[in-house]
Amino acid sequence: MTTYNVSFQPHEKQITVEEGESLLRAAMEAGVHINASCGGEGVCGKCRLIVEEGEVEGGVSEQLSQADVDKGYRLACLSGVKSDLSVRIPTESYIDAKVLNLQATPRKTARIKQLNLEDLKEKGLFVPPVERVYVEMPVPDSMDNQADVTRLVDALQRDHKEHRIEFDLSVIRKMPDVLREADFKVTVTIARPVREDGKNRIINIQPGNTTDRNYAIAIDIGTTTIYGQVIDLISGEVLAQYGDFNGQLSYGEDIISRIVYAEKGNGLEKMHSLAVSTINNVIGKIVKKSGVDKDEISTITFAGNTTMTQLFLNVNPRYIRRSPYVPAANIYPPFKAVEIGLELPDHVTALVYPQVSSYVGGDIVAGIMGSGMYQDEELTLYMDIGTNAEVVIGNKDWLVCAACSAGPAFEGGGIKLGMRAAEGAIEDFSIDPVTLEPMNMTIGNVRPKGICGSGLITCVATMFEMGIIDSRGKFNRDLDTSRIREADGVYEYVLAYEEVSGVDRDVVINEIDIDNLIRAKGAIYSGCQTLLAEVGLSIHDLHRIIMAGGFGSYIDLEKTMTIGLLPEIDADKVTFIGNGSMMGARMSALTNSIRRDVVSTLNNMTNFELSETKSFMDNYVAALFLPHTEQDTFPRLKARLEERRKKLAQ
Amino acid sequence: MTTYNVSFQPHEKQITVEEGESLLRAAMEAGVHINASCGGEGVCGKCRLIVEEGEVEGGVSEQLSQADVDKGYRLACLSGVKSDLSVRIPTESYIDAKVLNLQATPRKTARIKQLNLEDLKEKGLFVPPVERVYVEMPVPDSMDNQADVTRLVDALQRDHKEHRIEFDLSVIRKMPDVLREADFKVTVTIARPVREDGKNRIINIQPGNTTDRNYAIAIDIGTTTIYGQVIDLISGEVLAQYGDFNGQLSYGEDIISRIVYAEKGNGLEKMHSLAVSTINNVIGKIVKKSGVDKDEISTITFAGNTTMTQLFLNVNPRYIRRSPYVPAANIYPPFKAVEIGLELPDHVTALVYPQVSSYVGGDIVAGIMGSGMYQDEELTLYMDIGTNAEVVIGNKDWLVCAACSAGPAFEGGGIKLGMRAAEGAIEDFSIDPVTLEPMNMTIGNVRPKGICGSGLITCVATMFEMGIIDSRGKFNRDLDTSRIREADGVYEYVLAYEEVSGVDRDVVINEIDIDNLIRAKGAIYSGCQTLLAEVGLSIHDLHRIIMAGGFGSYIDLEKTMTIGLLPEIDADKVTFIGNGSMMGARMSALTNSIRRDVVSTLNNMTNFELSETKSFMDNYVAALFLPHTEQDTFPRLKARLEERRKKLAQ
Repeated sequence: MTTYNVSFQPHEKQITVEEGESLLRAAMEAGVHINASCGGEGVCGKCRLIVEEGEVEGGVSEQLSQADVDKGYRLACLSGVKSDLSVRIPTESYIDAKVLNLQATPRKTARIKQLNLEDLKEKGLFVPPVERVYVEMPVPDSMDNQADVTRLVDALQRDHKEHRIEFDLSVIRKMPDVLREADFKVTVTIARPVREDGKNRIINIQPGNTTDRNYAIAIDIGTTTIYGQVIDLISGEVLAQYGDFNGQLSYGEDIISRIVYAEKGNGLEKMHSLAVSTINNVIGKIVKKSGVDKDEISTITFAGNTTMTQLFLNVNPRYIRRSPYVPAANIYPPFKAVEIGLELPDHVTALVYPQVSSYVGGDIVAGIMGSGMYQDEELTLYMDIGTNAEVVIGNKDWLVCAACSAGPAFEGGGIKLGMRAAEGAIEDFSIDPVTLEPMNMTIGNVRPKGICGSGLITCVATMFEMGIIDSRGKFNRDLDTSRIREADGVYEYVLAYEEVSGVDRDVVINEIDIDNLIRAKGAIYSGCQTLLAEVGLSIHDLHRIIMAGGFGSYIDLEKTMTIGLLPEIDADKVTFIGNGSMMGARMSALTNSIRRDVVSTLNNMTNFELSETKSFMDNYVAALFLPHTEQDTFPRLKARLEERRKKLAQ
Repeated sequence: MTTYNVSFQPHEKQITVEEGESLLRAAMEAGVHINASCGGEGVCGKCRLIVEEGEVEGGVSEQLSQADVDKGYRLACLSGVKSDLSVRIPTESYIDAKVLNLQATPRKTARIKQLNLEDLKEKGLFVPPVERVYVEMPVPDSMDNQADVTRLVDALQRDHKEHRIEFDLSVIRKMPDVLREADFKVTVTIARPVREDGKNRIINIQPGNTTDRNYAIAIDIGTTTIYGQVIDLISGEVLAQYGDFNGQLSYGEDIISRIVYAEKGNGLEKMHSLAVSTINNVIGKIVKKSGVDKDEISTITFAGNTTMTQLFLNVNPRYIRRSPYVPAANIYPPFKAVEIGLELPDHVTALVYPQVSSYVGGDIVAGIMGSGMYQDEELTLYMDIGTNAEVVIGNKDWLVCAACSAGPAFEGGGIKLGMRAAEGAIEDFSIDPVTLEPMNMTIGNVRPKGICGSGLITCVATMFEMGIIDSRGKFNRDLDTSRIREADGVYEYVLAYEEVSGVDRDVVINEIDIDNLIRAKGAIYSGCQTLLAEVGLSIHDLHRIIMAGGFGSYIDLEKTMTIGLLPEIDADKVTFIGNGSMMGARMSALTNSIRRDVVSTLNNMTNFELSETKSFMDNYVAALFLPHTEQDTFPRLKARLEERRKKLAQ
């Protein structure tokens, strides 16, 4: 892919972008504000800039006069980069220019962690829980007519040093014919035990040598979406993946409403079968995409939160939502995939990630295992922000965890015009420090329909840093812009007027939204503080942050620290692992050591019910400010705010 | 039950019988011959005797004139004993009287072994594979909200010293509600492992204390009949039992025809489901009879021969009937009864007896285990005579076994008028040494329809000892009786003419029948000899005989030695255990030590394929005589034959 340099004047900022990228996105990335409220469809006509050097594609619109076009004016949102460029953003006043560089710190996103297969192989940890072994046996005769099973066990012991072998009845059923069809040269599929003194279970037998193919499926059972991957257990690679909405969604968006439904009549059975049928659909899709023969799939691994796991396994989740919040089990036994209605061959063994507590489930355990955090020396904060938020803090010796009742604000829930990260969601935002005009960046570059989690964070952080809202999240009533207004007694800022929005109303952010975000981030931050305090440490002792969840890879880390969601830490110490649950599910299909380690990890882990932890409420109340009552804990922000005050006072 | 003494004159023999017993049976039991060919229905009128002292009920018939009745004549078959009696058998001649006591040795039957529960309890072996434990747990609160499973595991470890616990998924499903319904006081059903380092699997959970009830079902899967018992695992007692014809019977009487059927199309599936449905029927009957709640049944144990086991488990038996006669497996894993279609609760665990080889199956292993033979110091011969015959010889240190191709002669198969031991079968027999008139005793005291195994043995033994047939089984052509005759070139003896028989023809025994019996007993005897020779011992080293099978408890042991089926041994060293397979299945429900011991027993056991053992054919040919070519091996018989010769020569 060809890349070009774009320099923005008078900001003197440069950025490298791929060919065809819009100048609006390039500006946002560079931390350069351009008024743009319509999300990039050329509707509002505000994102005018002058191309001084180089060539763009498009950028011309009815919003520009021919004279303007001749002078080099283009609409940023419609201009695709075609060469190295120098562009100038028209500044309307002296004040504009003065505060040019105040508003945005350079954008920093989290490193993205990829599963390191080579490392796994080098450490001898690439040992899937289900392996294949090719065995040749002497053909029976009248002097040697021991039973087929005995013959196979003898050969496995003698030639392959396999011991403590047991058989599935289904394998015994196939064995007499398979052995003879293949002249006593067969491949057996062995399910490994967790403990070394456990049994090696033969779950399948095939004629000839089939050790060159062996596949697994990994499934992340999310409350909203169920993802699946087909994994090649020889190469370790993901051959196909697919995600589908959890069929339970129509019975409620959150786990509590699912539990409530499951408590009624045959609701549990319904929830169970909806999960199973979504999973079957995902399996069908990924098996087809991968081109793998379904019969060559040996195992399936699952990770999901406690409620999703119990619903999937048809285990009554009633007591998860009732104090004292008791889950049915931490560890589930392996079982046959067909037993639970999965459309997979008889022999496929299912493994389910264990749970820590009612609100720290298998998805989090999977993330801890998949990210390798449980093996680290350093003190790490693991954070999974989804419909809810869970935090885990610790290292290889100890772990503490808690679920934070953050609510769904980061997924757009409880926000007036909040929405999921879908087309039309404002995902990034900037504001002109003088005119207070917005620059909205939407997913899909279409008219704004609402605001998603990352957009909300950026919005609130930017407004706070620019003094538009105060540390309590209230708008400065003295500002001179019609975009800030009172509606039904609540102050709000208009991100996009109806004329340029993608919905039949103004897209706004109001003080209630901001308050919800503050409560959400406050719950998470104070949760971390409380956990750390319980082990005699403070937030400053954190060495590393791992973020999991849909949220994360592209949000501006500095902004999350500005609102006080994350503590201030170098951006390069933050790692984004994406769907941690999926990563962990995949890992457990690749290395059986995960299953052994997970038991000791669970033993190292202490769960705190924050509502039962005395110091939590104090910490929470202190965190209900931007960034926090103790601003000294955020020295970088504090320095920026002071610098800004000084500049504006000049 | 009142008993009376009956003395027979002029024989001077006495016997004690129960009130109401017929005088014909009393005479047979005492070894007194009375002509009686009609089986006890008063049809032939030949069983006349004179009641000299005491009182009988009935005994009068049209066959007797009033004058005879007045003299005290009665028909033995119609006379019921009502007091102590002295009766006289009319002797027709001097010769009659002279040989009176030559024909029959006192009848000796095998001791019947009962399962000794007290002994089991005293040895600490009354530890069923599935036990119940009552557990009380602290109720969860906000300071202690661990998962339900964890809470239960902790309580089991702390209060009951139970370790290495694992759970069925179905138990986890029930647990949350059961715990709370019962205020955290529950009873768990634990399936014990075979090895001490195995897992203790929780298979059921019930509210409150239900440790006072725990039941098992034991099933013997016979080729002909499937028997079941409900066993109380608290007292060890059998609460109900029932047997039903194996539903596979209509597809062939023997295992070979079943295998042949199973090889065709969906024949295996058919055989499998017929076995399962017969077992379900038996279970239904015995559960109802016992009055036990089906939900309180914890385990089901099975024993059957190799073919029956493979058909029941839906394992292709094709290679059992083909050289080199390889079974699919020796040991089968435990499985859930419902998995195989049994109508039992989800939690019921099924245990199947292991096999030694294609023709020494789980029924024999069950007998070895159930009889305790595997623990004995003494050299014992275990013999199971059914549709086929299997022999096991050895002691606690070693065991050798073989299947003998005896054929079904002992069950009446291959015999012209052979039949199973059902109503109308001649089961016992005596012959007048002078007139050569028969005394037939039939099952049910009805007209003879045919002859069953024990009748055949007695018949042949008696005829041989009285010189009616020679050691090759051929009739003495010189004897003066119309009962011996030639029909279609084959000599035969008429046991009952059509007029008195229960079928539309004469009931006979012919030389082909006798030859078949000789081949059958020869195969068994020479099988024992061959096994013994392989371990450097001889038939004289046998210290004890255990007989299993339908055959056995009431046959005259001396007669089995006369024909050379059993070696000569004191009758009190012979034990009859009846259905050894059933006994073993029951034992394995009562004590888990059986499952541990069975593995080492199998390791101690060497199977011989007699057809592949060189000395077998020589031994077999030598055994095709009555009792054997080496008559010196049967010294008691030899002495009797000499005594008889002398007496007749007087």
